[in-house]
Amino acid sequence: MNLKIAVLPGDGIGPEVILQAKKTLYAIGEVYNHEFVFEEALMGAIAIDKTGNPLPEQTLNLCLNTDAVLFGAIGDPKYDNNPNAKVRPEQGLLKLRKELGLFANIRPIKPYKALIDASPLKREIIEGADFTIFRELTGGAYFGAKTLNDEGTYASDLCEYSEEEITRITHLAFKSAQNRRKKLTMVDKANVLETSRLWRKVVQKIGEEYPDVLLDFLFVDNAAMQIILNPKQFDVILTENLFGDILSDEASVITGSIGLLASASLGEKNALFEPIHGSYPQAKGKNIANPIASILSAAMLLEHFGLFKEANVVYQAVEKAIEFQVVTTDLKPDSKFGTNEVGEFVSNFI
Amino acid sequence: MNLKIAVLPGDGIGPEVILQAKKTLYAIGEVYNHEFVFEEALMGAIAIDKTGNPLPEQTLNLCLNTDAVLFGAIGDPKYDNNPNAKVRPEQGLLKLRKELGLFANIRPIKPYKALIDASPLKREIIEGADFTIFRELTGGAYFGAKTLNDEGTYASDLCEYSEEEITRITHLAFKSAQNRRKKLTMVDKANVLETSRLWRKVVQKIGEEYPDVLLDFLFVDNAAMQIILNPKQFDVILTENLFGDILSDEASVITGSIGLLASASLGEKNALFEPIHGSYPQAKGKNIANPIASILSAAMLLEHFGLFKEANVVYQAVEKAIEFQVVTTDLKPDSKFGTNEVGEFVSNFI
Ligand SMILES: CC(C)[C@H](C(=O)O)[C@@H](O)C(=O)O
Ligand SMILES: CC(C)[C@H](C(=O)O)[C@@H](O)C(=O)O
Repeated sequence: MNLKIAVLPGDGIGPEVILQAKKTLYAIGEVYNHEFVFEEALMGAIAIDKTGNPLPEQTLNLCLNTDAVLFGAIGDPKYDNNPNAKVRPEQGLLKLRKELGLFANIRPIKPYKALIDASPLKREIIEGADFTIFRELTGGAYFGAKTLNDEGTYASDLCEYSEEEITRITHLAFKSAQNRRKKLTMVDKANVLETSRLWRKVVQKIGEEYPDVLLDFLFVDNAAMQIILNPKQFDVILTENLFGDILSDEASVITGSIGLLASASLGEKNALFEPIHGSYPQAKGKNIANPIASILSAAMLLEHFGLFKEANVVYQAVEKAIEFQVVTTDLKPDSKFGTNEVGEFVSNFI
Repeated sequence: MNLKIAVLPGDGIGPEVILQAKKTLYAIGEVYNHEFVFEEALMGAIAIDKTGNPLPEQTLNLCLNTDAVLFGAIGDPKYDNNPNAKVRPEQGLLKLRKELGLFANIRPIKPYKALIDASPLKREIIEGADFTIFRELTGGAYFGAKTLNDEGTYASDLCEYSEEEITRITHLAFKSAQNRRKKLTMVDKANVLETSRLWRKVVQKIGEEYPDVLLDFLFVDNAAMQIILNPKQFDVILTENLFGDILSDEASVITGSIGLLASASLGEKNALFEPIHGSYPQAKGKNIANPIASILSAAMLLEHFGLFKEANVVYQAVEKAIEFQVVTTDLKPDSKFGTNEVGEFVSNFI
């Protein structure tokens, strides 16, 4: 297979971890005879620094014209702590998601056997947990109108959803549930929010087309509790953008480290793969960032293009790295391995 | 002291647990020579059933003219699963919060020694954790304009905040931090939301008036993770309405059961005390609901009126109940004690 892949390393630890993902894909390409052509482009704080724009036209065009996007991380404290900044790195990522129409963000959560004890949760709570979060990614309060009055004393964010936006991701989530344990949990705040009530109505109706899938509903406050109390009850979780952002970071504790979680963002035509962790600027350049999430997003990319055998080899390589404790210090505080070494181990294994 | 207390048992297990809170206050009144006069009124699904209105005029007037409100729980699945219901129980609670101006919801989180092992989190993670969440309660997406188009295919919720709304709760939170370990963590999503950026700006400025308090900021997705990874890092958490709703339910896992957590909702003139758990309709009338959260909200009421000695006796009584394992099945699956027995134990101890 020939794939043209846009690579956006982004900020902080982004470039370091993306490098390991690329190494993994190169190794897969060599062994399994695929040609992956990478083209790098700027996004995020680094793009602002160099061009004034967090998503330069050139980057967007590249992404629109490649088979897939591999993305690192975004964000820089110099923008976070300046509420008046007019241009912010995150705008680049949000614009990219919107322009590529990446409406479904898929985040699998499953603890590794060898890491069960790295989690703050007890072994018996997480052993056997295995669920996937479907987070709507191009709607809700992320993209609704924002206002700030002239005096800077009043602000607003509009959360909006249309039936169409809900429908397309809901079908994906139901289909995924059909291939799994056949349970879909819709998470919303339908006792308070009008958008949640629309979600509930649409999902209930679509559910009739999937009679083999058990559909249930949880309020988001309760869901945030249940994910910790009893994560095994979940199979597929479907939720709107902001709730999905919160719940998927929370759920990362089940695996022991957010440095292990990858995500795929899918649209009608495009697909983007990224670790769910952020830019972790304190770790930048220190060879301590965990590259596994980034490597796993490369595996999700392979799966997306039907290269299941190849993806499995990557999953196995990661499992071996964890089993042999070739991991970064987030997983083993006294580890002597860094970002590079973990990446080397994985690509050598392939 | 003479106090007139409005009692709103509400729905589901509300009436059962509120009864135990009342018994506690009666016992305190007798021993310490206070007169607590209770007046009951309807709110929630039960009020809809009887009057068509989740917050009847009479209930509101009563609450406006008493020293404090003791509230049980609200909600009924027959409304949750009907997105088209025009009147819903929760509207009663939201209207009451708004009309009484209860802008600050305060939720203390601290594990009990005897219950450390009841938490899904490991002992070493939660031992020593002790923080308080200040949740803004009368603003944000809960109260902004909601729309649904005529075809029922588009919905929106407006999240709004003004400097004034942010200011008043921020001062309360800083003052509380001054009396504690002098750290305040503001939780927001300032990399995406305009309202969060306003929060950050206002809180930053007010922070200058409290130089003895260490102020830091966390994005809500990261906060949802940190609360589980390392809850000991927190002292006072300050956040907006919906984030506070999610994070405080999540944080309940630290204590092993949401049936242990009480909250105080404060305004300029009024105060309301309630367990943070919901109406738990499946348990209604079965004498299995945990009354401790409700009893602890009575203790928070006592504290609010300066009755610290009395409040402490209630806290001690609850600790004894837990120590002697006079608890409901959420805390000890094979317990033979029910709602009533736990309540009896506490009031007898006083
Ligand atoms: C960086 C930020 C805008 C982003 C989000 O909130 O979507 C991140 O937290 C994520 O989950 O991908
Ligand atoms: C019942 C519901 C409207 C309420 C809320 O969301 O505020 C509850 O979850 C709470 O936290 O008090």
